Amino acid sequence: MNIFLNFASILLYLAVQCQGSGTDIALDAKATLLHRIDSLNLLIYTCLLTLTVLTIWVFKHRRVSWLHETGLAVIYGLIVGAIIRYAASTNQVTYINVHPAPDTKYNLSVPPDMLRLHFPDKMQVSSGDAPVPNKTYAYSFRGEIVNVEQNEIDLKATFDPEIFFNIILPPIIFHAGYCLKRKYFFRNLGAILTFAMVGTALSALVIGSLMYGCVQLMPASLASSFTFLDTLYFGALISPTDPLTVLAIFSQLKVDVNLYAMIFGESVLNDAVALVLSGAIQNYELRYSNDGGFEITAFLGAIGDFIGIFSLSLLVGALMGCLTALMTKFTHVREWPLLESALFVLMSYAAFLIAEVCELTGVVAVLFCGICQAHYTYNNLSSDSRNRTKQLFELLNFLAENFIFTYIGVSMFTFPKHHFDPWFIIAGFVTSVLGRAVNIYPLSFLLNLGRKPPIPMNFQHMLFFSGLRGAMSFALAIRNTVSEARQAMLTTTSLIVIATVVLQGGAATHALAYLRIPTGESGNDENDALPYRDVRSPADLGFGLRNMDSTQPASCDRAADTPRDRGEGSTGQKARLARLWGAVDSKLLKPLLTHARPPLTETLPAFMRPLARVLTTTHQYTQGDNSLRRTDSDSDLCIDEQHPIPTSIDPQQIWPGLVDTRISVEGITGSNI
Amino acid sequence: MNIFLNFASILLYLAVQCQGSGTDIALDAKATLLHRIDSLNLLIYTCLLTLTVLTIWVFKHRRVSWLHETGLAVIYGLIVGAIIRYAASTNQVTYINVHPAPDTKYNLSVPPDMLRLHFPDKMQVSSGDAPVPNKTYAYSFRGEIVNVEQNEIDLKATFDPEIFFNIILPPIIFHAGYCLKRKYFFRNLGAILTFAMVGTALSALVIGSLMYGCVQLMPASLASSFTFLDTLYFGALISPTDPLTVLAIFSQLKVDVNLYAMIFGESVLNDAVALVLSGAIQNYELRYSNDGGFEITAFLGAIGDFIGIFSLSLLVGALMGCLTALMTKFTHVREWPLLESALFVLMSYAAFLIAEVCELTGVVAVLFCGICQAHYTYNNLSSDSRNRTKQLFELLNFLAENFIFTYIGVSMFTFPKHHFDPWFIIAGFVTSVLGRAVNIYPLSFLLNLGRKPPIPMNFQHMLFFSGLRGAMSFALAIRNTVSEARQAMLTTTSLIVIATVVLQGGAATHALAYLRIPTGESGNDENDALPYRDVRSPADLGFGLRNMDSTQPASCDRAADTPRDRGEGSTGQKARLARLWGAVDSKLLKPLLTHARPPLTETLPAFMRPLARVLTTTHQYTQGDNSLRRTDSDSDLCIDEQHPIPTSIDPQQIWPGLVDTRISVEGITGSNI
Repeated sequence: MNIFLNFASILLYLAVQCQGSGTDIALDAKATLLHRIDSLNLLIYTCLLTLTVLTIWVFKHRRVSWLHETGLAVIYGLIVGAIIRYAASTNQVTYINVHPAPDTKYNLSVPPDMLRLHFPDKMQVSSGDAPVPNKTYAYSFRGEIVNVEQNEIDLKATFDPEIFFNIILPPIIFHAGYCLKRKYFFRNLGAILTFAMVGTALSALVIGSLMYGCVQLMPASLASSFTFLDTLYFGALISPTDPLTVLAIFSQLKVDVNLYAMIFGESVLNDAVALVLSGAIQNYELRYSNDGGFEITAFLGAIGDFIGIFSLSLLVGALMGCLTALMTKFTHVREWPLLESALFVLMSYAAFLIAEVCELTGVVAVLFCGICQAHYTYNNLSSDSRNRTKQLFELLNFLAENFIFTYIGVSMFTFPKHHFDPWFIIAGFVTSVLGRAVNIYPLSFLLNLGRKPPIPMNFQHMLFFSGLRGAMSFALAIRNTVSEARQAMLTTTSLIVIATVVLQGGAATHALAYLRIPTGESGNDENDALPYRDVRSPADLGFGLRNMDSTQPASCDRAADTPRDRGEGSTGQKARLARLWGAVDSKLLKPLLTHARPPLTETLPAFMRPLARVLTTTHQYTQGDNSLRRTDSDSDLCIDEQHPIPTSIDPQQIWPGLVDTRISVEGITGSNI
Repeated sequence: MNIFLNFASILLYLAVQCQGSGTDIALDAKATLLHRIDSLNLLIYTCLLTLTVLTIWVFKHRRVSWLHETGLAVIYGLIVGAIIRYAASTNQVTYINVHPAPDTKYNLSVPPDMLRLHFPDKMQVSSGDAPVPNKTYAYSFRGEIVNVEQNEIDLKATFDPEIFFNIILPPIIFHAGYCLKRKYFFRNLGAILTFAMVGTALSALVIGSLMYGCVQLMPASLASSFTFLDTLYFGALISPTDPLTVLAIFSQLKVDVNLYAMIFGESVLNDAVALVLSGAIQNYELRYSNDGGFEITAFLGAIGDFIGIFSLSLLVGALMGCLTALMTKFTHVREWPLLESALFVLMSYAAFLIAEVCELTGVVAVLFCGICQAHYTYNNLSSDSRNRTKQLFELLNFLAENFIFTYIGVSMFTFPKHHFDPWFIIAGFVTSVLGRAVNIYPLSFLLNLGRKPPIPMNFQHMLFFSGLRGAMSFALAIRNTVSEARQAMLTTTSLIVIATVVLQGGAATHALAYLRIPTGESGNDENDALPYRDVRSPADLGFGLRNMDSTQPASCDRAADTPRDRGEGSTGQKARLARLWGAVDSKLLKPLLTHARPPLTETLPAFMRPLARVLTTTHQYTQGDNSLRRTDSDSDLCIDEQHPIPTSIDPQQIWPGLVDTRISVEGITGSNI
């Protein structure tokens, strides 16, 4: 890349020297060159992704299971990053030092947005032959230069970190929310919330404290550059997990759905928690930076920040989801699926943007928007839009995810702000393992006190083992790399992500076997066993038909759809939280936001009947319960215990829970909501 | 938006004044503010698009036909642009003048990429109380300031023009190529190429010359700022047509497919032609700017540029398309549709990027890549990928198109570089109408000399009337707005686009009636009559099934799929070009790139049999001819005349052509390739 670049620079220089026809042409040529470099950067990543796709295909074809596509993307990225770094020479960015014009007055203490340079003005331009006319150029603010000696702005094949938060993460997170298998999610809500909320905070605190201790033992130069808040920030950013690889293997081997739901649900939520947590730590830092000590009011303020931002973001996302549901319910936009899909995408993106405009967390908003869209709007959509939206987000998720892992690999070599500190890296690895242990074992113990059935020990080990770090940790680490401390954090985080994704991901199958976690039968139902459920021969056209009237986004495979539901005994106990939520949901929200039965006219108290009548569609009155039950099976939170359980159930009952609705509904006709 | 912004600025100012804790916090706050403004800009457009979608639904629901969605998007854009312009106050960008440091030496005649400002250094900062530490800030090059008095960088709700070329146009153009109804396209290839190539160049020349004449008659201040190349550039950018509205009405009213194919094919190709043409004019300008007169070598160079860039871009796109076809044919990646779709998208985008990196025209590459993908790769894809890719690009196209028209409306008020010159605007309107007339009538006359059947007069009028201007003209006009001449061009182009889209688009139905162009029966086949073919009730699940094994991307509605094929007499004559191409295509390319029969082993000469055997898949040997004919109906260029024509054909034979394969195939079993 840079060979080409240098060659082009020389050409450009020659062109300028030979023609001497003013700076206009040179400027145009320079703009063209920059555009080509941008295109080349994108092309590198496009080719890397293409290569990854082809290799994944080969691996799937030959049934290689020790390397997941994310691991592959990282490794390809590392190779190409090394080539770019060592094979190509450095592109020199030209710069000069400037001073304000003598008579300038400026009335703000922040640097101005824009500089105006008269060029060449009184400067000595060495190429004497061509008289360059005086022109005025605009320069816009870029950032602070900390290390003046170093030419820091030399970025090769790198992107603005904000791109991750505004373009790459939203579709990944939305997809996770949209594909959440809500039934098992809500059934394990207590455990998931405990692990995600309490666990992540605990893990951040433990990692932060331990790292602070470690840093104090290190050479003084490093120790002085880290404050406790810095290490706490590191704890927050390294805590979220991203067990893509493990989950892909789970769905391949049909591991227990409840274990799957816990790992997936936790990883989805702890991304959101970690993002808000790191924001709260930064706010604390911003507000109280003049005083190094601990301030109780500031601490409470940070906690208030955390709760406020998290719940407001959740609210924005949920409201936008419900608004979309109302729009799709009360208009007939479903007659034009393209319009409907566009509306769906626009409203979901608006949730992200509204949260960002209000200084909330867009990623959290988009997660809960995705959950609401799946839970309510999805039921109102036409079958064409259902297919289209789930396929669209599946594809976007696939591309975004692999892009971010490729980028982690490439940036390891090309991103200029890495700071390799062996002690910090070792301490980071050790503490991140300890943090995960603190997240899982004590909390599982506490949960098991009140939980029936308890989480068995081998499941706890598997939860611990699934603590891979991924996209969110990297995005948070690369966001701010001004100080040396932050640069050391970025390096450590990148290495932890690469190591966990490649090594831990590769060892997941062995871990399952070693922990004796039962895996489902893999003989029949071949299609479901593969990570991509879309696998089907062209002759199997009936599949498309079957898919069309099922409610759950069916091809969200990594998410939670693939592990087979096992018939389980009905001895499990329904969580109180889930029961309460289920009542509100089925009596109020579902009838209001979707065409689900029973209609509001039946569930609302008598004095609200007129309102209820307005909010109920004729479709809701006329459809039978039966058809609805069928199309709405996964949205159920729990089923009622008093229903008879069909006896033809697979006896493998590792995890005593509730029977799957989709099995029981075959024998039951009647509303059991 | 700017009220909010000003409020925030004041808050920021106060925060800085009160705390006085250095510039770090102020800078962070400023970065946050900028991020929020970016989000707000995006939110404005997201809301506008949502509003457009909802209004389109209302219009479709109430069967309003006098305003197309693009017209609607423009009008909403205008309203919101006016509100932003007049209701909100201006955001002040702070700037200072700078001089190079005294000892600076700089050895290039172009301005440096980067400035380093020591702030506050020796500057007088008025807020005396807080001592601001000296820091160094980086400023990156933005552009030239032409009018120093004016604060030009005050951009409200505007985007970098390059975004149009790199993000918005590629999916639109790819979709057009992917959805081109190739049978009718190739059948009318001669007329389409004449109109698109010769016609666009002729139109650009006529408009350029007339405008130059008009400009000379205008007040001297304006006349001096336009060169002939400037007006020629204007001619090139205003020549491409974008008859979305007209085509939407065509498909609604089932207008003759050949007329439809000519208008659509011409508009797709003339976008590409105009883009390359304007590039060639700029190159001419760049290379020979020191001499104002006409140079024959320079002129020939420009023509060489045009032909070279166009054909090389075409080649890049076609090669990438064929490469994708080979990849999907010889790997079994179709077993994993998600991987397959990702590969498809990545390869298509790579075609664009490769062309851009090689200084060719990415848009042209992506157009021909789309055509090749539809013609070859599409046949190899799994049904899931077929659906997914066509739905994906349909959605992207819809969003991109409406975004660009919304932006045309908003930027009319908010883009700072408009220059309203009434004479230039009037001249622009008149000459663009004349240019369209020169494009259609003389060329139709010449075509009719050799063409059998001739293009009837009312069709010529309709072709003339379909000369709406759209996205490509606007994108070209907004790309460069440095000089006053270019700014006047942008304003004129915006106004022409708005006027043609809203007025001409609205009058299209009346024009059809006035010109007595026969429209098809609209009674039955309701689904096909609507612009969005996806319209179907959820009960109509069979449709999805039907769609799945048809080869042509079915829901590309605007494109060309909706007008019903009319059974026409077989008296038409096949164009020689199409015949030659058809032979190469069916004997060599199709068997090589797809699973189509007859295999290469039958079509290649004997001495190449070993090679042919390697390139033929078992699938190709084993499948029957019959099944293939069905799945490959539209890809046919022409059908053979010797086949019997079923007699059950609609007698409305306005345009004597060839019978549609899909009708004839019902009665014919046998390979007629």
